[in-house]
Amino acid sequence: MKTTTRIPEGFLFSVTEAAIKKPGRKDLALIYSAEEAVMSGMFTTSTVKAAPVKLDMKRIKTGKGQAIIVNSGNANACTGSQGMKDADEMTALAADMLSISKSRVYVCSTGVIGAPMPMDRVRGSIVDLIDGLARNTVDDAAAAIMTTDTFPKVVSKKMTVEGKAVTITGFCKGAGMIQPNMATMLCFILTDANIAKPALDAALKSAVKRSFNRITIDGDMSTNDTVLVMANGMAENRLIKKSSDDFEKFAKALDSVCYDLCRMIVKDGEGATKFVEIEVKNARNEAEAEKAAMAIANSLLVKTALYGNDANWGRLMAVLGYSKVALKEDKVDIFLNGLKVASKGSATGKDKEANEKLKSNEIKIVIDLHIGKGSAKVLTCDLTEDYVKINAEYRT
Amino acid sequence: MKTTTRIPEGFLFSVTEAAIKKPGRKDLALIYSAEEAVMSGMFTTSTVKAAPVKLDMKRIKTGKGQAIIVNSGNANACTGSQGMKDADEMTALAADMLSISKSRVYVCSTGVIGAPMPMDRVRGSIVDLIDGLARNTVDDAAAAIMTTDTFPKVVSKKMTVEGKAVTITGFCKGAGMIQPNMATMLCFILTDANIAKPALDAALKSAVKRSFNRITIDGDMSTNDTVLVMANGMAENRLIKKSSDDFEKFAKALDSVCYDLCRMIVKDGEGATKFVEIEVKNARNEAEAEKAAMAIANSLLVKTALYGNDANWGRLMAVLGYSKVALKEDKVDIFLNGLKVASKGSATGKDKEANEKLKSNEIKIVIDLHIGKGSAKVLTCDLTEDYVKINAEYRT
Repeated sequence: MKTTTRIPEGFLFSVTEAAIKKPGRKDLALIYSAEEAVMSGMFTTSTVKAAPVKLDMKRIKTGKGQAIIVNSGNANACTGSQGMKDADEMTALAADMLSISKSRVYVCSTGVIGAPMPMDRVRGSIVDLIDGLARNTVDDAAAAIMTTDTFPKVVSKKMTVEGKAVTITGFCKGAGMIQPNMATMLCFILTDANIAKPALDAALKSAVKRSFNRITIDGDMSTNDTVLVMANGMAENRLIKKSSDDFEKFAKALDSVCYDLCRMIVKDGEGATKFVEIEVKNARNEAEAEKAAMAIANSLLVKTALYGNDANWGRLMAVLGYSKVALKEDKVDIFLNGLKVASKGSATGKDKEANEKLKSNEIKIVIDLHIGKGSAKVLTCDLTEDYVKINAEYRT
Repeated sequence: MKTTTRIPEGFLFSVTEAAIKKPGRKDLALIYSAEEAVMSGMFTTSTVKAAPVKLDMKRIKTGKGQAIIVNSGNANACTGSQGMKDADEMTALAADMLSISKSRVYVCSTGVIGAPMPMDRVRGSIVDLIDGLARNTVDDAAAAIMTTDTFPKVVSKKMTVEGKAVTITGFCKGAGMIQPNMATMLCFILTDANIAKPALDAALKSAVKRSFNRITIDGDMSTNDTVLVMANGMAENRLIKKSSDDFEKFAKALDSVCYDLCRMIVKDGEGATKFVEIEVKNARNEAEAEKAAMAIANSLLVKTALYGNDANWGRLMAVLGYSKVALKEDKVDIFLNGLKVASKGSATGKDKEANEKLKSNEIKIVIDLHIGKGSAKVLTCDLTEDYVKINAEYRT
């Protein structure tokens, strides 16, 4: 398996400008598969779901799809029944243009919540998307779905299934509003693998649990978070089922695509200067390890200390304490970029050395609770003045 | 009942400089009651508790006390068995000096976690505290316990219980590391009321639930959070019991002292420019109302939007969604400083007007869920670049 920028067989992309939030950039994208694909999806667990999420959650029950229309600039969330009509109309317009059933078209939106979708401009622009299919690339599509992202996020993996080349390409937008239980706002994974729906569902669920659900930028979850996978079978490999020998291979490649996209999202965290991996080891169980790691990743006091190159491990202890996971204070060891700063819950006197280690832009925090066998890793970033600036001025 | 700066009968204060973190400011304070007092206390619910908290939690079981020694600059947390010895020695030194039993002396510490208490300097300074008792004031003590606070926080209320003047005076430190379930780091409430221990406990528990436990600056809870109340009975009123007619009067005055201190803490939130009250009305029950209000108060995206005078009510809807409280999206009304920005979950088109309203430095957010009868108010502040700066540079 090696990383390339290869696109799976049969997928085409198109982007155009609909001036949804403001003019001057591509903000509408289309993903199209030449053949109908098996679809799997995961959606925000928020009780306030955007209109496109509600629509997609219904359509995904068919397990089939052929196109996805995506816009940035407007989330079509908290837009009432008009929002539902607008989301449906977007799929209908795309379906007409592509001469397919609208039940095979999905829609995803990202941007400002609570503003009506400017359908006059969207209607006029969707028809433009047909031309682009001949010349636009996945990178164009990845750029069109960006909001406060500073770079497009695309990952591609190739594998061989019984002599047939299979490709998985994923792209996503991230940046802010990232948090547990559907972390990225929008992620699209395209593959030419020939795979059964239950196998695709299982592989996606497992990949998301340890990737998108274990990253956090600011602890806020969105109304629009969506991961959609399309598998169109055009690689013509023998059908992968959950029981197939090749299932593990496919699942691993999907894991790897998701994990790499997550690393990109965290690296592009709003205003972030540091990429931070937090590993909690030997907790009572995996769930408690994840809970502790996530509490640390979401602590403002930890995130600001990391930004300030301050090896303030006392703040880590404080978070472990209020996270309420099982621990014995006098058993806790803490390592910052390999240096032991706390041993059995007390200082090792290495703070100055540790401050130096924190000047790196990649930080690894390891906390060993020494009371069980559960471990988990969470990715996050530091919190800076720029994060505040970006989010104070988002709509201006 | 009126607000004065009166001190209850029999309480004396003293402060001195022990150069615990660095020289140049008073960082050690003593509170002394001429007569033994009934004591009540509430402590951090974190599983990682500082040594002084562990000590006080034992001593409070006697229900009695006569002095409290307090230091800033070092939290004496994550300091192992030496930390416990140091906390005990601090009370023993104060007890010796005052010629009382050390079992009647409490100790509170605030400051950096994980650094050993500089006992050589503390030992030499505690003896200096005896002189100050003749001349120092409660304001001196309130100033000595400050860390990143920008002003001392003192509140005093006077009441009459059957012809006897009773005073309740509280002071506290706040600023950062403020969050639900023991919000302030250290708070001391002194009264000359003659009150039975069960009545004092009940009044304190109720006051804390709706004050300190309903404010949040950054969602981080400390290892040292403590509220201690001393009631020395020197007002010579008839003993207040839970069944007394005057119990409600006393409880109300205590509520009012706690609430006013909370307002001061939030107004002095690290880097804050705005004081924010969040009221969630007509939730399924009070607990759900509190949960929703607290989730909003802790959302970075909400706090940064408020800082930027951006009436981004969509972010409020997003938080309500992930808070998982019972709601119907199409029933939610949102008001910002009295202006309805969302009606039945959708925009009212008043965003520009609302942006103007947000330019005030006092913000009131009201969310009406229209599905039950539970209501709760939470106090918080906005999130600014200065918060990041203060906490990135805290130990430097």
